[in-house]
Amino acid sequence: MSLEIPALKAWFDSHKEEIFFRFFTFLKFGSVGTDPAYHHETRACAAWLLNYLKEIGFQAALYETSMHPVIFGHYCTGGKERPTLLLYHHYDVQPVDPLELWTSPPFEPTVRGGQVYARGAQDNKGQCFYTLTALHAFLQLAKEAKVNLKIIIEGEEESGSVGTSQFLKEKGALLKADHLLVIDSGIPRLGTPAISMGMRGILSMEATLSNSREDLHSGTHGGVILNPNRALVQLLAKLWDAEGRVAVPHFYDEVKSYSKEELSCFEMTFDKEEYERKFGAKAYAIETGFSPRESNYIRPTLEINGIQGGYAGAGFKTVIPARAIAKISCRLVPHQDPEKIYERLVHFLCAEAPKGIDLSISEFHGAPAFASSFDAPIVKLVAKAYEEVLGKPCRYLLMGGSIPIVGELAKASGAATLAIGYGLDDDNIHAPNEHFGLDRFEQGFLTVGRILSALTGRE
Amino acid sequence: MSLEIPALKAWFDSHKEEIFFRFFTFLKFGSVGTDPAYHHETRACAAWLLNYLKEIGFQAALYETSMHPVIFGHYCTGGKERPTLLLYHHYDVQPVDPLELWTSPPFEPTVRGGQVYARGAQDNKGQCFYTLTALHAFLQLAKEAKVNLKIIIEGEEESGSVGTSQFLKEKGALLKADHLLVIDSGIPRLGTPAISMGMRGILSMEATLSNSREDLHSGTHGGVILNPNRALVQLLAKLWDAEGRVAVPHFYDEVKSYSKEELSCFEMTFDKEEYERKFGAKAYAIETGFSPRESNYIRPTLEINGIQGGYAGAGFKTVIPARAIAKISCRLVPHQDPEKIYERLVHFLCAEAPKGIDLSISEFHGAPAFASSFDAPIVKLVAKAYEEVLGKPCRYLLMGGSIPIVGELAKASGAATLAIGYGLDDDNIHAPNEHFGLDRFEQGFLTVGRILSALTGRE
Repeated sequence: MSLEIPALKAWFDSHKEEIFFRFFTFLKFGSVGTDPAYHHETRACAAWLLNYLKEIGFQAALYETSMHPVIFGHYCTGGKERPTLLLYHHYDVQPVDPLELWTSPPFEPTVRGGQVYARGAQDNKGQCFYTLTALHAFLQLAKEAKVNLKIIIEGEEESGSVGTSQFLKEKGALLKADHLLVIDSGIPRLGTPAISMGMRGILSMEATLSNSREDLHSGTHGGVILNPNRALVQLLAKLWDAEGRVAVPHFYDEVKSYSKEELSCFEMTFDKEEYERKFGAKAYAIETGFSPRESNYIRPTLEINGIQGGYAGAGFKTVIPARAIAKISCRLVPHQDPEKIYERLVHFLCAEAPKGIDLSISEFHGAPAFASSFDAPIVKLVAKAYEEVLGKPCRYLLMGGSIPIVGELAKASGAATLAIGYGLDDDNIHAPNEHFGLDRFEQGFLTVGRILSALTGRE
Repeated sequence: MSLEIPALKAWFDSHKEEIFFRFFTFLKFGSVGTDPAYHHETRACAAWLLNYLKEIGFQAALYETSMHPVIFGHYCTGGKERPTLLLYHHYDVQPVDPLELWTSPPFEPTVRGGQVYARGAQDNKGQCFYTLTALHAFLQLAKEAKVNLKIIIEGEEESGSVGTSQFLKEKGALLKADHLLVIDSGIPRLGTPAISMGMRGILSMEATLSNSREDLHSGTHGGVILNPNRALVQLLAKLWDAEGRVAVPHFYDEVKSYSKEELSCFEMTFDKEEYERKFGAKAYAIETGFSPRESNYIRPTLEINGIQGGYAGAGFKTVIPARAIAKISCRLVPHQDPEKIYERLVHFLCAEAPKGIDLSISEFHGAPAFASSFDAPIVKLVAKAYEEVLGKPCRYLLMGGSIPIVGELAKASGAATLAIGYGLDDDNIHAPNEHFGLDRFEQGFLTVGRILSALTGRE
């Protein structure tokens, strides 16, 4: 049975109220996986999701890990002659601070101008829920469908997937599939379909410089003791050379260069005016010798994601703080090994830190970059579904961002792997006022619906 | 009438319970002048103090300013033939964070090992309250004393004294005096009397670097936009040269050099082992070519008192923050004009900031350094009182810290000005677990008592 767009649309329209009631319920869970204060909400969110998966007809279970549980479900009626599709999502979200910059509370979804505003509205609850809604519709409308579907929804995408990784090692056999769709990616602009053919890896770490036991008075001690804030800014400033390249020795050793031909497959346009209008950007850090997209897609970067030392609140506090901290991450490209890059960074920081001061460094997590192949049949199938929904030719992207678990998932499942989705770069994911368009929610639903239909092989 | 130490001691002992009950009440007010959240507590503290001053016999009033009120009181029975002593204190205290490092709550005074722990226990409520207690005792015991006493207690010492400065401009005539004692200083070690003959000035400012309108995802945007954290550490790192000197052009232009003879008057010993034991210090920033005390007493410094950008809390947040902020202060030495130094710093930061990024700088406050003269008769009088109480020869210090209003107070009062007190450098002022010894509280009481007695000129 083939499910055409009008049938999917009709189902969506007649279930609209229920769909959005459930979607907003999902958004209301404060599932900030990285913050222990949200532990209970994160678990409640997992339990709620499990229940919904069962309700729509999946056999599903919650697998405990060292951190947040993995939800795994399957609906396999296709037998050995039909291919198996594995879907990936995550139910954890990023922290919400600075809270004061949110127009409406992050866990009270609010619709303004056709967009739903909430933490996770796009990343990844929005994209997860249009997938679940499409599964729901598909299983209701195509009852007799012979299809093999599996889904994994993890709770640690934003915090390194340590427990999920363990789950893959122990229960990886469950995930065996032909195709894997990681629906956590985006499109270059509204209405333009796109498949992400690769994504950068990540390595994140924390460095703390400590000197005195406690904060000291900057008059009584200024001129005597080394201020950890000063030590930290001087140390971190050395991470880049005068050209703006990462100055850590051997940082770029394994980075592959791309030919013009290779790059020609990908969407590489960058509209600076549009970028400035969207993000208010004023200053750039594009790697010398590369275009903005090249610098973002195929070059590794290093960012200070957080820095804190002493008192930076209202008023003024004349202290020399006891310690200063920096949270640092790198985006990695294919062939860069997170462990090796971490070692090189640690070596550099230790060598360059001022004499005597305590430097402690700890790794959060690392995941290599991932690259898909144009040869996999799933590429054409997905492109066709996208093109039917949006009426435009599909484009191909590389992602500057990372989905840390994808490499391990591809390996465990043995599946040809693609990242797709309906994110836009100004959805404010990881930032205040995250939002997702209700139009894109519906387009996502239709696209996944068409992919599921195509998999039955009878359209 | 002369009030000898035994008589003062007897009064102290017989009033001990009442003294400490009142002192702890004073400490319980959360008079964090710099933080608007503590506004009501700061005002309540001022009202309570005014009441106590009246109770012990002073004519006193509260003078409103643009920020926190000034308390001024006087007790003048000496007529024109007796000299006038002006005393200076402040009732505002520093902020208390990081709160989690306090062993007992900062506004619940707690005695452990002979020390009272509370925000303000030393700076300046402890020193203020032994002075008030000495005034109380003196006025009870020496009823017929012909003496001219004035006291000013401000509420903005920790936040720039803007309102107090305005008060001095408008009501400065009230403060006319022969001697001014600023009792907010310290001794080099327990049991060693010391007079501070000078203190460094201060200049404090805030610099903010902003780029995008909101925080951005460090994968999606990394390699394109300049991270304000990176811009900030690179900018701030330029503030010092390779020798560790402040690299701002003309920063040292007006700094006076001292002869060995001039320096020989001052306590210049520095016991590195003791310093390390006390503060846990591991790394130093002593100016090249100077001893630790010289670097702290007679050389200007620049410190980053606070730095903040992005997310540095539990877990990890992969953002490129919209802005990063630094709170910076300089300690200034005689002949350095805070306004000129501020201009030079602003010029440097603007010239060195990366192209395109928004840099906004604002000044908190500035106050020049202050130096006393050995020729003033009050020097001998105070030294004698100190020596009687502690039984050791008085030493002379320079202060690395600043009491911003002292220069203006000296000018308004026309008085010979000294800074004295019983602070120790490990009292944790401006830091968690601030404390003050009950032994030093009593010594302070006796010292002020003997000074008051000496001023009657009849001992």
